[in-house]
Amino acid sequence: MGSPEEDTPRLKDLTIDNITDNVKAINDQGSDPRLKYILERAVQHIHDFARETRLSHQEWMTGIQFLTAVGQKCTDVRQEFILLSDILGLSLLVESIDHPKPAASTEGTVLGPFHSHDVHDEPNGAVISHDPDGEPCLVVCSIKDTDGKPVDDVKIDIWEADSHGFYDVQYAGRDGPDQRAVMRSGKDGVFWFKAIVPVPYPVPADGPVGKLLGLLGRHAYRPSHMHFMFEKPGYDHLITALYLRGSKYEHTDAVFGVKESLLIDLKPVDAEMAKKYDVKEGTKLISYDFVLVSEEDSRKLREKNAMAAMEKLGRRMKLYKGLPVPDVD
Amino acid sequence: MGSPEEDTPRLKDLTIDNITDNVKAINDQGSDPRLKYILERAVQHIHDFARETRLSHQEWMTGIQFLTAVGQKCTDVRQEFILLSDILGLSLLVESIDHPKPAASTEGTVLGPFHSHDVHDEPNGAVISHDPDGEPCLVVCSIKDTDGKPVDDVKIDIWEADSHGFYDVQYAGRDGPDQRAVMRSGKDGVFWFKAIVPVPYPVPADGPVGKLLGLLGRHAYRPSHMHFMFEKPGYDHLITALYLRGSKYEHTDAVFGVKESLLIDLKPVDAEMAKKYDVKEGTKLISYDFVLVSEEDSRKLREKNAMAAMEKLGRRMKLYKGLPVPDVD
Repeated sequence: MGSPEEDTPRLKDLTIDNITDNVKAINDQGSDPRLKYILERAVQHIHDFARETRLSHQEWMTGIQFLTAVGQKCTDVRQEFILLSDILGLSLLVESIDHPKPAASTEGTVLGPFHSHDVHDEPNGAVISHDPDGEPCLVVCSIKDTDGKPVDDVKIDIWEADSHGFYDVQYAGRDGPDQRAVMRSGKDGVFWFKAIVPVPYPVPADGPVGKLLGLLGRHAYRPSHMHFMFEKPGYDHLITALYLRGSKYEHTDAVFGVKESLLIDLKPVDAEMAKKYDVKEGTKLISYDFVLVSEEDSRKLREKNAMAAMEKLGRRMKLYKGLPVPDVD
Repeated sequence: MGSPEEDTPRLKDLTIDNITDNVKAINDQGSDPRLKYILERAVQHIHDFARETRLSHQEWMTGIQFLTAVGQKCTDVRQEFILLSDILGLSLLVESIDHPKPAASTEGTVLGPFHSHDVHDEPNGAVISHDPDGEPCLVVCSIKDTDGKPVDDVKIDIWEADSHGFYDVQYAGRDGPDQRAVMRSGKDGVFWFKAIVPVPYPVPADGPVGKLLGLLGRHAYRPSHMHFMFEKPGYDHLITALYLRGSKYEHTDAVFGVKESLLIDLKPVDAEMAKKYDVKEGTKLISYDFVLVSEEDSRKLREKNAMAAMEKLGRRMKLYKGLPVPDVD
């Protein structure tokens, strides 16, 4: 091995046509095969994008300034790059690739930018929304595995907007978490709590991503929904949400999260349930049976899908830590 | 026309396979055909990138955090996104696409992140570097058009690093511009000044882009060079640089800027020149004849190249403000 200077590719007189292969070559000197593959594909696509659009210097500078503004809009409680990924459909795509769901299990959807770790553990039955303007809503759900057996002690993250369409983290003067909780499923796989009926709301539209939505003639709204995240060792991590059927924006969600299987109808609580859960008869009810897939089944399906996709690309690949890399042996 | 809600595509049950077309469809509602085409290609490439890498949620989050850090590293005098574009070869590619040069004219190269508008006008003959540690260098150049005629009154931006490899803007306590100037060519197309011999230096490597270079096993160095930018109405804007032949990193420039036609050899000033330009005999000399292409010729070549590239893509396109967009009529 000579010095790095001698070993690297010769990079001179690069043109529109030869630059991509040479940038790939100089990026191929690291030791992590997965990082090298990711960079190889990133460089190919970024360069193809510039060639196919004949990107002008002025447009390039507009892009540089846009990405800079997106980065600078990010704070501890706001992630504008996730929002950008959301409105371009990348977030849902990555979720679909990374967490494939066998037919029998609950589908996943976008995490969104409002999940927070600043949240309290709550027991079943807790009131998790203290918004006086919200319409009360009882939520009673169960968690099962793909064999139909209840799954207990699942860690469940729940978060929703308030009746004005804002999450707690969007208020400058907030003094703690609200409209969110972490709870655990009981022995029967059931978890339940008291919240408010979700309402539609816009994603934060006062930053560069909101401006882009405007230029594209798109609205910033999401249909009414409540977020859920499920974690238990041995089960595939499930990020999902329940959407109210018939909600405005059901068909035009700004972040592409709605799935038929995740649509629910609000029902009124009957006399028996009202007594059991200590709510007024007629209170709105959200009820859903979530089905978790095992980590093993999810991994197998993800790896099978990955290799099938690689075969379609016509490239000789192998798995490295469960993810595809070129098979150069 | 109904409400926006009714007009937009129906976006539900999106999958790995159908999400791209649907995101493209909802992005296609704006009025600017060029923005729509750019977004269409961006979405295609971002989604293809995720599909071809089977991008994991964790890798996606690493990417989100990386881009956020790049944005947050930017200040008034530091542009980390331009640096990222530079080290991925995008900057040189865009420059090549936007400013094609007929064979007879001077090639362009990367602008780099250190051009500054905080610069003084200087007359010909000015000393533009006040670095006491720099090796003095006389620079005498001419500017001609492609017919060989001198071009006078061209606005010329010149900037270089000091002898320690830093630009003025990289010093926290700087009290004004140094190693940079704006001057004008004389009636004979000549401009000249006194500077220092350029030295190799690393691009700023203390941020996220420097960290990426490290992970890729790449060094951060550029070979010795001096930047030039030429502007005159009627002539294509020329961003270029002269590189010292034989400089370390000549073949491994971290930002891919070196071109054979831009390599120069330092020569010693002879007795006659020493007298004429009032420098010591034997002082290092940089001399180069720059050739500017007319705006008209550059535009024609750019548009011809664009349409040829579009034809290769097999897509029916037309020019809109000189840039390709789909021909949907």
